[in-house]
Amino acid sequence: MKILVLNAGSSSVKYSLFDMLDRSVLIAGIIERIGEEAPSHSYALASNNRTRDEIVCLNHKQALQLLFETLTACGVLNDRSELACIGHRVVHGGEHFREPALIDTHVIQQIAGVIPLAPLHNPANLLGIEEAIQQMGGTPQVAVFDTAFHQTLPDYAYRYPLPEYLYTQHGVRRYGFHGTSHRYVAEQAAQYLGKPLSEINLITLHLGNGASVTAIKHGQSIDTSMGMTPLEGLMMGSRCGDIDPAIHFYLSRTLKLSNEAIETLLNKESGCKGICGENDMRAIHRLAETGDDQARLALAMYAYRIRKYIGAYCAVLGRVDALVFTGGIGENDAWLREQVCLDMTIFGIALDREKNLKPARPSSTISQANAGLAVLVIATDEELEIAIQAERCLEQPSR
Amino acid sequence: MKILVLNAGSSSVKYSLFDMLDRSVLIAGIIERIGEEAPSHSYALASNNRTRDEIVCLNHKQALQLLFETLTACGVLNDRSELACIGHRVVHGGEHFREPALIDTHVIQQIAGVIPLAPLHNPANLLGIEEAIQQMGGTPQVAVFDTAFHQTLPDYAYRYPLPEYLYTQHGVRRYGFHGTSHRYVAEQAAQYLGKPLSEINLITLHLGNGASVTAIKHGQSIDTSMGMTPLEGLMMGSRCGDIDPAIHFYLSRTLKLSNEAIETLLNKESGCKGICGENDMRAIHRLAETGDDQARLALAMYAYRIRKYIGAYCAVLGRVDALVFTGGIGENDAWLREQVCLDMTIFGIALDREKNLKPARPSSTISQANAGLAVLVIATDEELEIAIQAERCLEQPSR
Repeated sequence: MKILVLNAGSSSVKYSLFDMLDRSVLIAGIIERIGEEAPSHSYALASNNRTRDEIVCLNHKQALQLLFETLTACGVLNDRSELACIGHRVVHGGEHFREPALIDTHVIQQIAGVIPLAPLHNPANLLGIEEAIQQMGGTPQVAVFDTAFHQTLPDYAYRYPLPEYLYTQHGVRRYGFHGTSHRYVAEQAAQYLGKPLSEINLITLHLGNGASVTAIKHGQSIDTSMGMTPLEGLMMGSRCGDIDPAIHFYLSRTLKLSNEAIETLLNKESGCKGICGENDMRAIHRLAETGDDQARLALAMYAYRIRKYIGAYCAVLGRVDALVFTGGIGENDAWLREQVCLDMTIFGIALDREKNLKPARPSSTISQANAGLAVLVIATDEELEIAIQAERCLEQPSR
Repeated sequence: MKILVLNAGSSSVKYSLFDMLDRSVLIAGIIERIGEEAPSHSYALASNNRTRDEIVCLNHKQALQLLFETLTACGVLNDRSELACIGHRVVHGGEHFREPALIDTHVIQQIAGVIPLAPLHNPANLLGIEEAIQQMGGTPQVAVFDTAFHQTLPDYAYRYPLPEYLYTQHGVRRYGFHGTSHRYVAEQAAQYLGKPLSEINLITLHLGNGASVTAIKHGQSIDTSMGMTPLEGLMMGSRCGDIDPAIHFYLSRTLKLSNEAIETLLNKESGCKGICGENDMRAIHRLAETGDDQARLALAMYAYRIRKYIGAYCAVLGRVDALVFTGGIGENDAWLREQVCLDMTIFGIALDREKNLKPARPSSTISQANAGLAVLVIATDEELEIAIQAERCLEQPSR
């Protein structure tokens, strides 16, 4: 069975085609700068190096035409009917979706209905869905939501201390994101530890360009750091994460910034970038090595805020079996992992420094054998997880 | 030595006169509704029941005139020269004040300089100071700051992940509040435990109308939940505490609320009041006992958010000697203390249910004797702490 995973952004379409027999990637690529200057199509076949073509691509329709033509032209599909399913990444499913959904008119309406909660993401996701249906109407399409895994949060964790009508009438609550990644590494961790996921408690740290941490009890998400939007929680590359909600009024009153300017500032000019001018963790390390005090501070804050969430989620979980690092930074930044785990013996955390320096892929333990809590590094694979979820959705008896 | 403690708000002046020999309160009172309809003056002498007079009081000048006349008229001062010092509560000291300060023109300028950071509080505090100097020019006056105790926070704890210029040019950072209370109960806890404050690590929970929690390492505040303003951190009576910073944009964009309306909403209509309509914890308990689900939710959220901070500050401190409950709710709400401490054995917390139901005043242990961490209930006394700080300030050799 071959499943295509699509992630449509406002000016890009990312895709991967999986052979679900061995879960191998047949082709993975990205069409970028759609409708902008100098659009391009980069892709790699399992056998080949990466190819990059300059293309003409005015809109998502043309992007998907190119994509489907590429699949047959490259020979990864004999013809379009060979495609069993398309799995679409959708950022926000609101409270409607606790699971992936086979897309029909009603599902499309529900995704459109939560656009006010994710004005930057859901419209682009929908564009990808609608074009894929236009061009591949006969192929089942499944929506897989970034928020779905977190729909198990209890009310005292997902509600904000705000007037009730903001929740009941306007959907203001914690939704959480990166759910596909947190779910994937949780399942991998359970396999790796040789225990049923329904019996273990985990803290999963997805640290990439965005960053979030989830408390998982008996396999279910019970709290997560991102909130109604992906701006809350951990410090990120250019997003602020948790701040005093009154800073907003100060910026507006004293600096006369508009709400639009503040929104841009908190999303694009804050986080690591705000502190030291860089949002790429490798660049920040290079800067810190030259003695740059702002880079030192950015790293210290980044680690410190993760440590506080680990403590908070230990309180939430009561007992923790493993702490899982994933995402580009979580998988590759040994220095950061060490800083996060330093002096955390109160929680039973004790790193093995050697193992931390060279964790094996895709899963490995970096804590000491006798530690109270296992610290794991697990490579995430959101595209594969979307394919797996889409496959499960197709196989459900309710179809 | 007699010291008067003054807390001037925008329409009220609260005061206590201490005899520092035995730290007893000679008189304590409040002049309320200054410049409003039906102002009043309520006070109690050590020997008497409470007296409440309706008065004429158009402004802070008249309020302080009445106050100083009362002190001699009641006989608690033979004449005004008997007053050794006036200690003023000042909410915000910015980065200038790590300690109480003997008030002079320069100190007044510095307090005025941070008005943008505390537009609701510092102007009223200053009004009290200026009137007291006008009327009692010969008496030394000391400013005691709510923020001073937290000036020991390390940079990675007090900085926000925001553009650097917001800190360097505009003072956007965590300051923390309730410092006088956190310091007082920390000193009381050290005495009670029979250990030097400089050797113990504490988590102090000040739970009153406002609420904050502080991580104290070797006697110094190293993190605290309130931030640049008293809006951040724990859920409070009517303040929201921590929320997704992007909720602001949603309220502005979707509900068309002005920044002023949002500021009022987050400060006055949120917290417990937002969830269940009540901001008084006793009323919320009564409501919950009738089976009201919103009151149940408010209590669950209130406790849950405290638990997360305890976990976070365990991570920050590494080792914790005691958890201290104080403030109106912290000292009196046994149910809440039990909820906060439930299933927290991961941190060595184990409550003694009997002791928790009836803690002795002013300090008592409510944890089990063999628990890893002592849980204490300690009555706070911010007025006394201000008097003590003012006395110390007078006695400093630098005078």
